[in-house]
Amino acid sequence: PGKAKDKVVKFGKRVEKLGKDDPRRVIHSLKVGLALSLVSLIYYWRPLYDGFGISGIWAVLTVVVVFEFRVGATLGKGLNRGLATLLAGALGVGALHLSNLFENEGKPIVLAILVFLLAATATFTRFFPTIKARYDYGVMVFILTFSMISVSGYRVEKLLEMAHQRLSTILIGGATCIFVSIFVCPVWAGQDLHNLIASNIDKLANYLEGFGSEYFQVSKDGDCIEASENDKSFRKGYKTVLNTKSTEESLANFAKWEPGHGRFLFRHPWKQYLNIGALVRQCAYHIEALNSHFTNDIETSAEFMRVIQESCAQMSSESGKALKSLATSVRAMKHDPESAKEHVEKSKTAVKDLKTALKAAALEDSDLLSIMSAATVASILVEIVDCVENISKSVHE
Amino acid sequence: PGKAKDKVVKFGKRVEKLGKDDPRRVIHSLKVGLALSLVSLIYYWRPLYDGFGISGIWAVLTVVVVFEFRVGATLGKGLNRGLATLLAGALGVGALHLSNLFENEGKPIVLAILVFLLAATATFTRFFPTIKARYDYGVMVFILTFSMISVSGYRVEKLLEMAHQRLSTILIGGATCIFVSIFVCPVWAGQDLHNLIASNIDKLANYLEGFGSEYFQVSKDGDCIEASENDKSFRKGYKTVLNTKSTEESLANFAKWEPGHGRFLFRHPWKQYLNIGALVRQCAYHIEALNSHFTNDIETSAEFMRVIQESCAQMSSESGKALKSLATSVRAMKHDPESAKEHVEKSKTAVKDLKTALKAAALEDSDLLSIMSAATVASILVEIVDCVENISKSVHE
Repeated sequence: PGKAKDKVVKFGKRVEKLGKDDPRRVIHSLKVGLALSLVSLIYYWRPLYDGFGISGIWAVLTVVVVFEFRVGATLGKGLNRGLATLLAGALGVGALHLSNLFENEGKPIVLAILVFLLAATATFTRFFPTIKARYDYGVMVFILTFSMISVSGYRVEKLLEMAHQRLSTILIGGATCIFVSIFVCPVWAGQDLHNLIASNIDKLANYLEGFGSEYFQVSKDGDCIEASENDKSFRKGYKTVLNTKSTEESLANFAKWEPGHGRFLFRHPWKQYLNIGALVRQCAYHIEALNSHFTNDIETSAEFMRVIQESCAQMSSESGKALKSLATSVRAMKHDPESAKEHVEKSKTAVKDLKTALKAAALEDSDLLSIMSAATVASILVEIVDCVENISKSVHE
Repeated sequence: PGKAKDKVVKFGKRVEKLGKDDPRRVIHSLKVGLALSLVSLIYYWRPLYDGFGISGIWAVLTVVVVFEFRVGATLGKGLNRGLATLLAGALGVGALHLSNLFENEGKPIVLAILVFLLAATATFTRFFPTIKARYDYGVMVFILTFSMISVSGYRVEKLLEMAHQRLSTILIGGATCIFVSIFVCPVWAGQDLHNLIASNIDKLANYLEGFGSEYFQVSKDGDCIEASENDKSFRKGYKTVLNTKSTEESLANFAKWEPGHGRFLFRHPWKQYLNIGALVRQCAYHIEALNSHFTNDIETSAEFMRVIQESCAQMSSESGKALKSLATSVRAMKHDPESAKEHVEKSKTAVKDLKTALKAAALEDSDLLSIMSAATVASILVEIVDCVENISKSVHE
């Protein structure tokens, strides 16, 4: 029993963490419950039930399958479902009329052939990347509705009345979802994408700012303990940036469905976020390479370090600052190129200083092996300065 | 009209390409059509229709939503749907009995509260990463079935008969999907994951083999034209490896549902593939850093090149060969550590040679700036040798 109690406590803590990490999850769960309770009124409330009959259950079904965490996802699914149902409904009724031209034994054969052809063709279109990204659910509903109508139409009479009832309950269900998801504590995919990009830039900035002072030990000795406390977090933070591509893409797809909200207008240039995201990831790859040179088993030549130390520390901290200021200007959506540009310029000056210093320097006491690691760090930093400049240009576009 | 014709031709070409790239797509589309035609027999064929009535439509619905491209995905969705329907059905009937204890006006209120609580709780569980990965669809069907039963149970009589009919048609639909997807040209997620990992390793191998001879120009002059032909393809191939993490994860999740097939037994260690995949990606990050030093605007010191040339070309080509042989042994599922190990050992010897050469060398005519880029290439290659050794260990585990 002690073990079972432990497990329950552990589970409780996981639930609490999940809710605390993002309280919108709890709110979303309550919103789903609310939307479901609203549409079940169609069943419970006599006057409504008399109107829709057992078709009311389609409203419940629609809410469960359409309601998603983000407004854009809900809207996309809702619109896909509505349009696909309409289109497939019309085609299905057409197919039934066509089959009526044949004799009794021929009817099911004609219908089966039509269902086969349409399902196979529509399934194939789901492999088109553009359709897959935005209309996958719509195509599925299209196949579903068409088959249901042409199959059940063979037996059911009063088909049009049934179709009408179903369509209206689906619309009610979809409208309830969209209404609840937009007006009760909305979770906008666009806002999430915006925040994700800004926080990714921030993470890289933290790494670069931390790296400069750690690796080149510019900081005073007194700061060392504090630095090694922050150490772990800044050295791991950037890792998540490496794998956010698919998240960014799906958020951008959802965001395209969303109406204007907050500081985002409809047709906000979401694609631009993907471009920035790709450049940020490019920079993260370089940081990943940089990170593997953090510790080094061969002692670095102090002579060489003196040559590169100052300019490299400058490059690292100035690109970090540039990224910080870019993250701030993305967050605030302000077109403020100056402050980032200033840091970018400073980091580029540092690159020039480095090149001049290297050209002038000669090794006296050190062998080549002892400079390899530091030389690599220096040239990766030069690449990073380039990347940061690209990010800066792209943000201010 | 000329423009329209152009567009049609263009579209036709895209369709053809989509089909040719992976002919299994065409087959999958036909399989969906086949499964749908099979289950619509329930409606068309009188004796079956008499048994199931209009509930037969649930078989059609099940086929459309459950049938997926890969066997594992279909099985996972089918089992999720079946189990969730059973569980939610039982709970739903229980909820109806509970509500019968209350008076007429109280019933809908009790039911609405139950639906609200259950839907909110179940929606929250979808945020658990483990549930999200494998049981997301099951939880959705659970909410759906529970709400449908407890809402419609309030009005519909003969609930048990209806539930029984629906459950059996859902089982028929699910079984048809699973049968068709397993026995008609099956597409196994496990096999796809296996191939993906092997081809990712291959792509890195191609890069490394190409890089050595290109960058250090070891090849004879006569080969130059041929090399620059291959040039473009090997330098881009590895890029896709950077972003396959989410594909690998979903394939592994599907593969866990699959029974033994071909050379894979049930409970094949799919997790091991994810580990290898992560190491391969790690190596790809280093290659990405390497790739940015392919072209260089500052002339590299010929003196320094002579020092590192031989051992670096060796490192690059031997790690490439090691990866090639690892890819082959993954493909063939042969436990053949020797041939890869041999190349890994050779590349490690080359690392040692490089270190010795660097320790002994001194620069006479060159400044430090002119060696930076080549020094970086050399130390990234050292990192890659490490990575390849890790991949080799992980493959032979």
